Amino acid sequence: MSTLPSLPLAAEPCCAPLVHEPIADDAALQLAARLKALAEPTRLRLLSLIAAAPDGEMCVCDLTEPVQLSQPTVSHHLKVLVDAGILTRDKRGVNVHYALVPGALDSLATVLATPARG
Amino acid sequence: MSTLPSLPLAAEPCCAPLVHEPIADDAALQLAARLKALAEPTRLRLLSLIAAAPDGEMCVCDLTEPVQLSQPTVSHHLKVLVDAGILTRDKRGVNVHYALVPGALDSLATVLATPARG
Repeated sequence: MSTLPSLPLAAEPCCAPLVHEPIADDAALQLAARLKALAEPTRLRLLSLIAAAPDGEMCVCDLTEPVQLSQPTVSHHLKVLVDAGILTRDKRGVNVHYALVPGALDSLATVLATPARG
Repeated sequence: MSTLPSLPLAAEPCCAPLVHEPIADDAALQLAARLKALAEPTRLRLLSLIAAAPDGEMCVCDLTEPVQLSQPTVSHHLKVLVDAGILTRDKRGVNVHYALVPGALDSLATVLATPARG
């Protein structure tokens, strides 16, 4: 899977609301890639654990126990979310910390939300 | 793929915001299934065409040309979205019409949106 840019999605062409006008081919490809990264139960649980953490970030060392999976498996899932521009990865000494990319989930929410029809 | 209930998602346990507290296992499974149905470029284009249509619905007969795919392929993609509770299907004579399930995309948007942290 190629790495998507980690910029907030709000600045990108995928982010016109899906229901406002027909989505362009390239925007559909980009949006599908991000949704696919999210569309996995373990990744949703990891993302939710990180986002709900008191300081908004978690070490991979603290994520293996809640999802009952090995560190390589957890690290693989986290890499998918980093590559999709949804999580940031920060190595500090022997530990790797993950946090939400500010705005990434909100931008996806904006794409999916249906504005009131006039 | 089993059929998910077509009720508005707002009434279902998947819909607490993902970032508020760690998502439960069953909610993660259900949310992942819906996101997976969306995570395909052609399905996003079909959904967007239907949602952006003047009366909010489209006949499968009018969807093949915009996506340049055969009717069986288009019908397959539409079935995935119906099974995920995202589209409704209404057969009228020889034609089949599809429309958004009211609230379905908004509920997904609500799950993904990040409320301001206190």
